[in-house]
Amino acid sequence: MYIPTLFDVDEAHARIKPHIHRTPVLTSRCINSLAGAELFFKCENLQKAGAFKARGASNAVFGLSDEQAAKGVATHSSGNHGTCLAYAAGRRGIPCTVVMPRTAPQAKKDAVRGYGAKVVECEPSTSSREAVFAEVVAATGAEFVHPYNDARVIAGQATCSKELIEQVAGLDAVIAPIGGGGMVSGTCLTLSNLAPHIKIYAAEPEQADDAYRSFKAGHIIADDAPVTVADGLKVPLKDLTWHFVRSHVTDILTASEAEIVDAMKLIWKRMKIIMEPSSAVPLATILKNKDLFAGKRIGVIITGGNVDLDKLPWQ
Amino acid sequence: MYIPTLFDVDEAHARIKPHIHRTPVLTSRCINSLAGAELFFKCENLQKAGAFKARGASNAVFGLSDEQAAKGVATHSSGNHGTCLAYAAGRRGIPCTVVMPRTAPQAKKDAVRGYGAKVVECEPSTSSREAVFAEVVAATGAEFVHPYNDARVIAGQATCSKELIEQVAGLDAVIAPIGGGGMVSGTCLTLSNLAPHIKIYAAEPEQADDAYRSFKAGHIIADDAPVTVADGLKVPLKDLTWHFVRSHVTDILTASEAEIVDAMKLIWKRMKIIMEPSSAVPLATILKNKDLFAGKRIGVIITGGNVDLDKLPWQ
Repeated sequence: MYIPTLFDVDEAHARIKPHIHRTPVLTSRCINSLAGAELFFKCENLQKAGAFKARGASNAVFGLSDEQAAKGVATHSSGNHGTCLAYAAGRRGIPCTVVMPRTAPQAKKDAVRGYGAKVVECEPSTSSREAVFAEVVAATGAEFVHPYNDARVIAGQATCSKELIEQVAGLDAVIAPIGGGGMVSGTCLTLSNLAPHIKIYAAEPEQADDAYRSFKAGHIIADDAPVTVADGLKVPLKDLTWHFVRSHVTDILTASEAEIVDAMKLIWKRMKIIMEPSSAVPLATILKNKDLFAGKRIGVIITGGNVDLDKLPWQ
Repeated sequence: MYIPTLFDVDEAHARIKPHIHRTPVLTSRCINSLAGAELFFKCENLQKAGAFKARGASNAVFGLSDEQAAKGVATHSSGNHGTCLAYAAGRRGIPCTVVMPRTAPQAKKDAVRGYGAKVVECEPSTSSREAVFAEVVAATGAEFVHPYNDARVIAGQATCSKELIEQVAGLDAVIAPIGGGGMVSGTCLTLSNLAPHIKIYAAEPEQADDAYRSFKAGHIIADDAPVTVADGLKVPLKDLTWHFVRSHVTDILTASEAEIVDAMKLIWKRMKIIMEPSSAVPLATILKNKDLFAGKRIGVIITGGNVDLDKLPWQ
């Protein structure tokens, strides 16, 4: 297992800069007032392809040799990593296959195809996903870019918090949603090297709280097919992300489905930005743990904005 | 009738700067590709109180003498001007009354009250609105800040295109929605003085096309209670806004209800920002008049983001 370093992060940032946005950091006086803290929202929903995963995917795709690239890339993903790998592969002009649960939002399937990649459907469980994916790789010889348990991907995601600490001085903590742990691992990689005084929190749905239980138990616990509105956070930790989470995360906080939807609607209403349910989990946990964050300066990663506008969770 | 000048715009900008955002200009490669032009979206949906009208309202409120201010301000508004006047009055700590149609979105009524102002309801017609409003002013002695037919308000709105031409070089045209004409008049005021080579277009719903018909007829035509999803654009031109429209606007373009909703959804989906139906009318007209804008650099004013999230127009 190769553990990526700060050198990999710097190399990733130089490699992907032409292909990603340096996303803005937005604030809301109203939400600060509700939280009793100063929140700085790093808006990866405004990232290329609508999610932070454009960073890791671009780093993986543009780091391939021409020989590797000719065979294309492949992945399995409940959504944004698939879209973003398709985006990056499209930018480089190489083939891309994405294995997606048949229950994934139609908007996400359309987005993958819109970037010119091929979608292969599987059942909505980790076991089915991995089986179908193995067939795809065997047939195509494509380079596997795992959604998160991949040093290239984590180094790419790490560029997000690198930008954040350049954009906002004096942060006390950064909080990000946790599913497989790619963004959280990237955040750990950057902050443990460049700003080790900044605490790192992960936020997870109560109904998909395998990372929370892993963190408390001291070893990886994986659930098959949890059910939550935060559809980007259903996947389990793997060895590489577990390394970062157990080494550098201060705590993992959880929120109920209702708290997640309320936080999502609050951000839509007050900040006028579209972000997906997964991205609302950090604010939901901040609002229910006010004592923990009172008066602090908190970076909040808004991870993505790919929502099916015909199926909003409060309707 | 006092016609505001560039001096008033500069004075307004200095006066309101502490109370407004210099809003960002966003772009979308996907939407540019669909339009066949380069579009620069000036995002007043991210403005204080969620609309450009915070500019004009702040200029009016902060320009009052202490003696005038003590009696408060009042207005009638189908939505955003009311919210924004309430916002500005709240910042100055003076009373504010807003007469609103009883059919106005609940979210807009709540927003006015949220800033500490009083809402008085009227019937959803121009005639009822003006009658109820006269009673309010008689009872309170408040200073009337008209939503658009007011030199202070127009000078405030004019600061938007002043920022836009500082933020984007080489624009060929600017397009904004037209209801009463406050934003379009402010745009005319700024551009006719500072960048007279930039063409000014106004965009209007077909179902509330009184400004279009006025422009073609050469005199003001007013409709009572038109019906359109673009609820911010139902009001008629008045003498001051008519002066600017007839003097400086190149053309007024219209779009159907379906075209407006499609353009709104396209912006939500691709740009991940929340804007109201009125703000989608310019893009709707650009997409149906591609020859007119082909290859051009177009500033597009996104006027506001105050939407009732429980009643989206595509549902």
